Amino acid sequence: MIKLHHLENSRSQRVIWLLESLGLEYEVKRYERDPKTGLAPKELLEVCSLGKSPILEIEGEVLPESGAIFQYLLSRFDSDHRFHPRPTDKEYKDYLFWMHFAEGSLMWPLVIKLLFAKTEEKVPFFIRPVAKLIFTGINKAYLDHTLTHAMDYVEENLKGRDFFLGSQLSAVDMMMSFPLEAAQAGRFDLASYTEIKKFIKKIKEMESYKKAIEIGGEYAY
Amino acid sequence: MIKLHHLENSRSQRVIWLLESLGLEYEVKRYERDPKTGLAPKELLEVCSLGKSPILEIEGEVLPESGAIFQYLLSRFDSDHRFHPRPTDKEYKDYLFWMHFAEGSLMWPLVIKLLFAKTEEKVPFFIRPVAKLIFTGINKAYLDHTLTHAMDYVEENLKGRDFFLGSQLSAVDMMMSFPLEAAQAGRFDLASYTEIKKFIKKIKEMESYKKAIEIGGEYAY
Repeated sequence: MIKLHHLENSRSQRVIWLLESLGLEYEVKRYERDPKTGLAPKELLEVCSLGKSPILEIEGEVLPESGAIFQYLLSRFDSDHRFHPRPTDKEYKDYLFWMHFAEGSLMWPLVIKLLFAKTEEKVPFFIRPVAKLIFTGINKAYLDHTLTHAMDYVEENLKGRDFFLGSQLSAVDMMMSFPLEAAQAGRFDLASYTEIKKFIKKIKEMESYKKAIEIGGEYAY
Repeated sequence: MIKLHHLENSRSQRVIWLLESLGLEYEVKRYERDPKTGLAPKELLEVCSLGKSPILEIEGEVLPESGAIFQYLLSRFDSDHRFHPRPTDKEYKDYLFWMHFAEGSLMWPLVIKLLFAKTEEKVPFFIRPVAKLIFTGINKAYLDHTLTHAMDYVEENLKGRDFFLGSQLSAVDMMMSFPLEAAQAGRFDLASYTEIKKFIKKIKEMESYKKAIEIGGEYAY
């Protein structure tokens, strides 16, 4: 039996999308965020001491880390390669790249920007201007240009194709969905990123995406 | 021909270690960090518009992102599986986990902590106490416990084995080397992490590691 330990409003949502696409039988155990901190609840620590979601439970073992879960599920249950290329396919390099890029390069600057925004809200009002100054400094010196390079790269690579690896939906599109949606939800200005916005709109209209949302529960950032 | 675009003192160092271990012929193009900002130089942008290292150049294509480079090199040049398990091996789940965990979960909180420390040094002295207060707050509320869970997990998994996947060196050890060394270099207190310190000491004594350092150039954090 496959069980997904799923945190509401999280990167875990896309694992449901993959499980659905692969047509697998699975159970979803849903966890709610701590209402005060917005972090994962302590119960997740009992499943795996990393205390993060998603965690896949399969054959008596637990497997955390989105990219690893994706690659494991694909290696086990996508033997006809509907959702990921073969090592001999020309798309293989790109598949590996996006699979690692989503969390390794794109997601974390967005998380940090959110942390900064939340911290700015929470600090006493007389500290706020200084906090703003410091965060703006770090954003300018580091996060903004890292993110801009990353988003430009995504935009460029979506040009002239429907999905990340070409004309067909693949696991890469699912993996990349979360950071791009997180960006659109206010963590990065996508105004000039036509291709990315078109991509997000397209996936949101897909039946498998909608089904996954239905199963994962109401979804927000 | 394989060419590695290699930034000094960076996560790219471990790709040299892998290339060496696989016994491949390759060329290293070395880049120096901007002396003022400590960031990658603009020349890297000409190789790939993400402007980050490592970038692998192979068969007229470029491939950035450490984890992707590792998995690609292994799929192409480790067909006898000396450095990575087969999908049917029991270590396969762990292999995928560490391959993604290194950058997806472990490296970025260390990067942010370094950014905070550098920012604190740079801000005017009258802002410094407030900056310290804010960074301590974010560290306590988020980064420190994320990192502690992560390091505890690493420590636990190194217990009773020589390397991450058992008694033999694998690509996972190379991939994990950088964040662990970065932690030891002052970004996280490893005082009570006996297994991690033993692991770092062990890899540093390996001939292939030493050879890679010789090729990548003097190494510091």
